[in-house]
Amino acid sequence: MTLSRHLLFTWLLATLTTLSLHGADLSGKWTSEFDSQIGLQKYVFEFEMDGDKLTGTASYDHSMGKGTATLQAIELEGDKVSFTEPLEAQGMKLTITYEGTLAAQEMKLSRHVGDFATEQIVAKRAPIPHVDAQGRWVAPHPERNIPILPALAAPEDTSFYAERDVPHGKVEIVRYPLSAGGDKQMHVYTPPGYNPDDSATRYPVLYLNHGGGENDSHWTESGKTNYILDNLIADGLARPMIVVMPDTSGVVSGNVPQLGEDDACTTEYLQDILPYVDSHYRTDPRRESRAVAGLSMGGFVTLNTGFSHLETFGELYVYSSGYWPTMVEQFEQNFAPILNDPAINEKFYIPIYFGVGETDIAMVNSMKTEAVFARHGIRRYSVLSSHGHEWLNWRRYLHQTAQIMFPANR
Amino acid sequence: MTLSRHLLFTWLLATLTTLSLHGADLSGKWTSEFDSQIGLQKYVFEFEMDGDKLTGTASYDHSMGKGTATLQAIELEGDKVSFTEPLEAQGMKLTITYEGTLAAQEMKLSRHVGDFATEQIVAKRAPIPHVDAQGRWVAPHPERNIPILPALAAPEDTSFYAERDVPHGKVEIVRYPLSAGGDKQMHVYTPPGYNPDDSATRYPVLYLNHGGGENDSHWTESGKTNYILDNLIADGLARPMIVVMPDTSGVVSGNVPQLGEDDACTTEYLQDILPYVDSHYRTDPRRESRAVAGLSMGGFVTLNTGFSHLETFGELYVYSSGYWPTMVEQFEQNFAPILNDPAINEKFYIPIYFGVGETDIAMVNSMKTEAVFARHGIRRYSVLSSHGHEWLNWRRYLHQTAQIMFPANR
Repeated sequence: MTLSRHLLFTWLLATLTTLSLHGADLSGKWTSEFDSQIGLQKYVFEFEMDGDKLTGTASYDHSMGKGTATLQAIELEGDKVSFTEPLEAQGMKLTITYEGTLAAQEMKLSRHVGDFATEQIVAKRAPIPHVDAQGRWVAPHPERNIPILPALAAPEDTSFYAERDVPHGKVEIVRYPLSAGGDKQMHVYTPPGYNPDDSATRYPVLYLNHGGGENDSHWTESGKTNYILDNLIADGLARPMIVVMPDTSGVVSGNVPQLGEDDACTTEYLQDILPYVDSHYRTDPRRESRAVAGLSMGGFVTLNTGFSHLETFGELYVYSSGYWPTMVEQFEQNFAPILNDPAINEKFYIPIYFGVGETDIAMVNSMKTEAVFARHGIRRYSVLSSHGHEWLNWRRYLHQTAQIMFPANR
Repeated sequence: MTLSRHLLFTWLLATLTTLSLHGADLSGKWTSEFDSQIGLQKYVFEFEMDGDKLTGTASYDHSMGKGTATLQAIELEGDKVSFTEPLEAQGMKLTITYEGTLAAQEMKLSRHVGDFATEQIVAKRAPIPHVDAQGRWVAPHPERNIPILPALAAPEDTSFYAERDVPHGKVEIVRYPLSAGGDKQMHVYTPPGYNPDDSATRYPVLYLNHGGGENDSHWTESGKTNYILDNLIADGLARPMIVVMPDTSGVVSGNVPQLGEDDACTTEYLQDILPYVDSHYRTDPRRESRAVAGLSMGGFVTLNTGFSHLETFGELYVYSSGYWPTMVEQFEQNFAPILNDPAINEKFYIPIYFGVGETDIAMVNSMKTEAVFARHGIRRYSVLSSHGHEWLNWRRYLHQTAQIMFPANR
């Protein structure tokens, strides 16, 4: 790059670093919608901080018109914020006074329109546009760094999934009711120390999906999931978690769903599997405590079910999988609203993970699918390993990724 | 996937595993072109092995016609191979006898046409089509696994680039002549134990490029390259290597070159830098012993110079860089012959590496450029780290990647 571009980069970086030092920061865009005597009002507040000086505007859109006003008397002390908006309506000059508290992502404000009306409103921080007009990435430093992906285990290493002399979790086979009628079996791992009667402790849940022609038994029988987790937890390398291994044979599909039209697998997950797990186990039911992973055919559970329901799943892992090259374009089309969401990366504190082997028959599928995420600037972990479409790799991918799942204290 | 598709996968895998057990393997396609009394002859030999039974065909194309003959008396014992090709030309029935030796990638054969002529020919193994008609990856297990990428150093770790009490290499500033006239300065690191008079020892070379607004001093002054290498070599984690740090200010460009039309930077590399280094240092001048890496603006040396000259450079590393989004399409167009080369992955034993930070202003550029490689199924290492466009990351990327460079004994 030229020197001037380099200096611009340096300046940008310095600016971003400065901003990130402020906890509750007023600068930026805030949006608010609220009902009032004149109907729905839409506001965008925009503040700038230059040294100690605060300036700002309010753009309004309501039944009496649209416009932009320059805000006055802007004051910020700790988390207390106040400012006024001049209003001229039907020949009257009035002042709208705002006062309230500021948090990282929202302001709660009392809005006084002269002496006529008072409304309690909430202004939410607008998503930061992460790409500027030149396509550069513009993101403030996050509160917590992205975790460092540990190195893969060596292909000849069998110790990480051996039955060691450490506290063992429990694997149980349970049956859950299907809303379509009947019931179905799944394997569930609960970590060492799990106590169904301890209502104070809540665990994150990994939903771990098998490959084609397999069933809910394979992730423990061939995958050694329970030993991998036992060992990592004993060594302090993974957070104690519940691992749910359902049987998705016959419902999971390599076809790309339409957003809003859940396929059979997603429907079973949302209507049957999650409600059963969250009501029968001590789960932390927040999205950031729910991960979905799958190998080969199970990777489509990650993509079709997980990626289409980011309000439900917070972490996504694709092992040796990806859409067939003929379907990749359809994936990009059908998932465009999610792929193009400017706030998409805020939903991926733990980036989506793609792991595939250098002789893996799914290597090209995985890469071409990953390319769609990369082209949209979506945060990813991407691992190319030795070996192919085999348990030697899937055990290693689980071992590697379980170490970054559900970082504590976030 | 359906059960049948799963079984197909299993079968494919089994087939590939079987084939990979054979060192010098006759099965597959071999091509040969040679001059003869009837002019240029083009042959494609194709062999199949079914248990112990060998069958094969020869497709020929020469001045007397085109056709395919069934090969006979095919014998393979150790690396000795022989077979015959029936020939009927101008009413005469003749036998062409081939005998010679087989290696992994070529056969050297004596070709006897009856008693009339004998030619010494070489048949080369045709590149294996790595993607089948369904787009599946079809690759035999390589002789040597892809290396495991070590985990990044922690952002707060300063020990890996500290001046430790270990044997130190030497950093010298040298001037090399420019073919355009004049000369120019570069920094060169030689590892501990490097002896200019020891003609028996040859070292691989990393060409390490600075960012915009910087020069040949920054990779040692800010990047601590010499200490990073000293420490890794002392710990047995990196191979002793020469690191050449030129000053590419004013010649490197973020524009996409046309293949075959080297830009100023590539020209200087090929005409001035490499010849100087290979004639003044104990280098191993093979492509697989030459890596090119660069940060930010220097990443364009990796892409514009390195990726366009894979006959010269064997390993490519891109730190915090990538084409601007508006240029990515042109990159894909201009580099299409390389990107679409079915044998491209055979040139990347060490996959191309992209490292970028989560708040890096180059994150989107890096991802969008990487997406082109991913879409073409090209082997990559891809690392998303914490932090931004800064030395904290570039030192970590160098530390991580120096550990996979130039694997010994390959």
